[in-house]
Amino acid sequence: MTDDQMNIAADDPALTTDFAVEMVRQMRAIDSYGTFDTWPAEKILDPFILTKDQKREIPVVGDPDEIVMSRVKAFYNAIAALIEKESGVMAVPTINLTHEGFGRALITVGKLVVMDKTLRDVHRFSFPTLSKMKDEADKILAVALEIVGEYPKVAGL
Amino acid sequence: MTDDQMNIAADDPALTTDFAVEMVRQMRAIDSYGTFDTWPAEKILDPFILTKDQKREIPVVGDPDEIVMSRVKAFYNAIAALIEKESGVMAVPTINLTHEGFGRALITVGKLVVMDKTLRDVHRFSFPTLSKMKDEADKILAVALEIVGEYPKVAGL
Repeated sequence: MTDDQMNIAADDPALTTDFAVEMVRQMRAIDSYGTFDTWPAEKILDPFILTKDQKREIPVVGDPDEIVMSRVKAFYNAIAALIEKESGVMAVPTINLTHEGFGRALITVGKLVVMDKTLRDVHRFSFPTLSKMKDEADKILAVALEIVGEYPKVAGL
Repeated sequence: MTDDQMNIAADDPALTTDFAVEMVRQMRAIDSYGTFDTWPAEKILDPFILTKDQKREIPVVGDPDEIVMSRVKAFYNAIAALIEKESGVMAVPTINLTHEGFGRALITVGKLVVMDKTLRDVHRFSFPTLSKMKDEADKILAVALEIVGEYPKVAGL
C-alpha cells in the first residue's frame, strides 16, 4: 500500500491526541511479531479508517475475523486506558461477540458499568476519519467519567 | 448412557429447586433440535456433574468447545434469571472467553456489576454434585441481591 492510498495523512493533527497515542500503544501491544516496529502511527491506525466507498465494498453480512476483532478490542482498550488515566481507578473492558458479528462491549470501573454498547456489523468496524474516531472515543470517555463522578463509591473511589 | 452411569439421581431433591428448574429451562432454550424434549431433568443436567475421577480424565489444558461453552452460558443465564426474578430488574450476563479457556463472566443490573468472575479451565466446567452446583449459584445470587440492595439507584430500581 502506497502513501497515496492511506486514509490518514502523516500530518493529521488528530495523530498527536492522547487518544491516537494510546491507540498506537494498544496496537503495538498486540503486534507479537514486531511488524509495526518500523511503521509510523498513521500506517498502524490506517485500517481503522474506511471511506464510504471502501466500506461499501465489504459485504453487509459477514463474520468478523481475528484481525478485525483485535481492532475492536484495541479501540475499547484504549478508551478504558483513558478512563483509567482520568479517573485514577482501573477500567476493565469486556467484549462479547457472537459469530454473526453482533455483540456487546462493556467497560466497568469497580462495580460500575461506565460503558455498555451493542455491537453490530463488527466485520465492517471502521470510522470515516481519524478525527471522527477520536470524537467517538471522547464521547464515550466523557459519559464514563460523568458516571464515575456520579457514583464514586460504586466505582471504588 | 444408562441410568447407572448418571451422576444425578431421578429423585435428587435438588432437582425441584428454583435453580434446577431454571437450569433445565435454559438448556431447553438452546436445544434447537428438540433432543431434550423427551429427556427428564436429571438427564439434561447430567453433563454439568463430573465426579473427581471423571474430571481427572479430562486433560488439564484444553480448548473449550461450543458444547461446554453453551453449558457455561446456561449456568450464568440461569443465575441472571433468578436475580431478575428476585430483584424485579433485568440482569444481563456477559461471558468473555479467550481461546485457552480463560475468561471473565459478568452479570450486570442497570449500571451495576453484581457478579464478576474470572473463569479458568472452562473446558472442565463442572460440579461434583447437583447440590453443590445449586449452592454455588445460591452464593452468587445472594451476593448479587446484596449489591442491588446496597445500590438500588445504580441498579435502576
